[in-house]
Amino acid sequence: MAVAAKMLQFIENSSWIRKMFEEGTRLKAIHGNENVFDFSLGNPNVPPPDIVKEKLLEIVQREEKGKHGYMPNAGLLSTRTAVSAFLCREHCVSTASDHIIATCGAAGALNIIFKALLDPGDEVVVPAPFFVEYGFYADNHGGVLKTVPSREDFSLDLPAMEEAIGPRAKVVLINSPNNPTGQVYSAEEIRELSRILEDKSRSLGRTLYLVSDEPYRKIVYDAETVPCIFEHYPHSLIATSYSKDLSLPGERIGFVAVNPGAEAVEKLVEALTLANRILGFVNAPALMQRLVVELQGICVDIDLYKRKRDRLVEGLQSAGYELTVPKGAFYLFPRSPLADDIRFVRLLQEENILVVPGTGFGGPGHFRIAYCVDDATIENSLPGFRRAMERARKMR
Amino acid sequence: MAVAAKMLQFIENSSWIRKMFEEGTRLKAIHGNENVFDFSLGNPNVPPPDIVKEKLLEIVQREEKGKHGYMPNAGLLSTRTAVSAFLCREHCVSTASDHIIATCGAAGALNIIFKALLDPGDEVVVPAPFFVEYGFYADNHGGVLKTVPSREDFSLDLPAMEEAIGPRAKVVLINSPNNPTGQVYSAEEIRELSRILEDKSRSLGRTLYLVSDEPYRKIVYDAETVPCIFEHYPHSLIATSYSKDLSLPGERIGFVAVNPGAEAVEKLVEALTLANRILGFVNAPALMQRLVVELQGICVDIDLYKRKRDRLVEGLQSAGYELTVPKGAFYLFPRSPLADDIRFVRLLQEENILVVPGTGFGGPGHFRIAYCVDDATIENSLPGFRRAMERARKMR
Repeated sequence: MAVAAKMLQFIENSSWIRKMFEEGTRLKAIHGNENVFDFSLGNPNVPPPDIVKEKLLEIVQREEKGKHGYMPNAGLLSTRTAVSAFLCREHCVSTASDHIIATCGAAGALNIIFKALLDPGDEVVVPAPFFVEYGFYADNHGGVLKTVPSREDFSLDLPAMEEAIGPRAKVVLINSPNNPTGQVYSAEEIRELSRILEDKSRSLGRTLYLVSDEPYRKIVYDAETVPCIFEHYPHSLIATSYSKDLSLPGERIGFVAVNPGAEAVEKLVEALTLANRILGFVNAPALMQRLVVELQGICVDIDLYKRKRDRLVEGLQSAGYELTVPKGAFYLFPRSPLADDIRFVRLLQEENILVVPGTGFGGPGHFRIAYCVDDATIENSLPGFRRAMERARKMR
Repeated sequence: MAVAAKMLQFIENSSWIRKMFEEGTRLKAIHGNENVFDFSLGNPNVPPPDIVKEKLLEIVQREEKGKHGYMPNAGLLSTRTAVSAFLCREHCVSTASDHIIATCGAAGALNIIFKALLDPGDEVVVPAPFFVEYGFYADNHGGVLKTVPSREDFSLDLPAMEEAIGPRAKVVLINSPNNPTGQVYSAEEIRELSRILEDKSRSLGRTLYLVSDEPYRKIVYDAETVPCIFEHYPHSLIATSYSKDLSLPGERIGFVAVNPGAEAVEKLVEALTLANRILGFVNAPALMQRLVVELQGICVDIDLYKRKRDRLVEGLQSAGYELTVPKGAFYLFPRSPLADDIRFVRLLQEENILVVPGTGFGGPGHFRIAYCVDDATIENSLPGFRRAMERARKMR
């Protein structure tokens, strides 16, 4: 065949979700964008903080030789230093600039981590529901994703995770605040998970790495805090981006932080840097590296997302939806009133509401609402959500 | 082991080149940057055209919803349209926006091409000397690089290429203007190569793809032109970037263009788009996509590079170096006066001159000079080049 067999398979497997998107496009063409309530994409609608524009203008105007030139594969020293200083301040961890690699977003970060760590057949253990791209990222580098269902409220099922960590496991990957559930894992859960990883590393005779994908770390509500894995487990890496806190996901800027106490930390940093180079990222975009030097700790107005969450939670609950109130990120993952979530998502489409079936995230019987949308979209969608629930009840 | 075995091997294999770079850093620390003549990196020193800054300021200032947001994985429609319109105008080929995928530079472009095309064990046939990253890019996606030595003057050895294309071949990859040789393949060579590919596709019963990596297309001298492969062979793809013509390699912006006549063109575009997504690029950086919409056909002042080439060619030839005058790019690949090019590169280091051994490019017995440096660096290095030649002659 012309195209690689595996890619053809991937395209084939995702054809149902594509058809769903095509249906969304068709609905928008018929009814107009404003009359279709599109909750299908995690593309933040809150604009970047004003300082982003200000600093960008400053950087573009500044005279600086090689401003747009190649930079070291691991990133500018000033960027790496700013990030490590922020991590130290924020989490009291002793990360140095050496432990930071600037990346093309969190997706780039996870890909270089898997490239650096995975031997063929190595397993990446992840609690489900999970961000669907993880499967591809592991597979890209010869790894295999092993998913472990979470508890009813999307907290970690720790005994099940322990059970799932076998002799081929190499990485345990968590995502908190979680996409698609909005769950944040507690310090207690992370502590217990770390204990399991320590025990298992010992009994299996190979170091397990804990990777935390946390692009939503700053998007948390009600004084929730996200524990830092570095404080709990030495063989750990953080993958993250500025996509959500600065609302610039299209600019592809993020980083990997390696716990200075990780086994083989120097070789690991070397491997991550080489991976950044040979996977074709080469370096994280230059302008954005210079931008984030000056914007450590800056974040969009979380209250905007909180208001959206609260309105939606209230509206859905009063319409009879069962849901776990998300602690962070901008996703809701309600239970589908029909066991077949794809069928219910089609029902919502008939109300011009676009959401993603939980099946796509390894969480069947649910659906994902990305509420990073205009307030009006939320408000105007609620009658449709209510009608869909009523119809679903009659179908049961 | 903690780090993936393959990555450890890669790190080990490249340790000699790293030692060379460390020696360069050491020399700079001792003698000062200005007294070390660093020709080791292809990081363009010619600044971006003024219009780059102008347009960037315009774009950053412009009010536009979702300006920095996620964009379609294949790129903004306006970017894809601008690129295809330019290709049509420039090469009279009927490429449409559908056939363009915006990428994170040419490195990103080649990686998505290999991901989309290669089944495990598929071969990528490339004339040597070659850009050393190709081996990694092919291997990332299960492919195997097969190199074919070029002729004395670095033109294609077509009978040898024909010979090298066996039943596992899937891609023939050319790079013109070439890194490291500066060679540009003629229309005649491309025509003959295309004939070979057609014959071989027929006799092997599988479509061979021709991929042209051409980030240096606009950097050519003496009215040289670079033939467009689309005019010669239907199953062809162009991988390129704006890194060199706009002097912004750190910003990671380029594209893949697929020949509309390629076998399975629609599936191929779909696979490339999916590859952009799942390899973690997600989309080419947003700001840069918006920038290049308005800068099609714009290029740095080539005369600056030409002057550097001419001065260096003259200086080296008068010192007794044998070389093929490069037709494009900003590299010279002279013959090493010692058969052992690594040894000669060390000799140059003793003159505070940093270059890369040809062995690193599959071109032993040569060395690469990246002359995208200040004129003073060239001028002041010439006595050292002369002394190294004299010493080498005595050593033979």
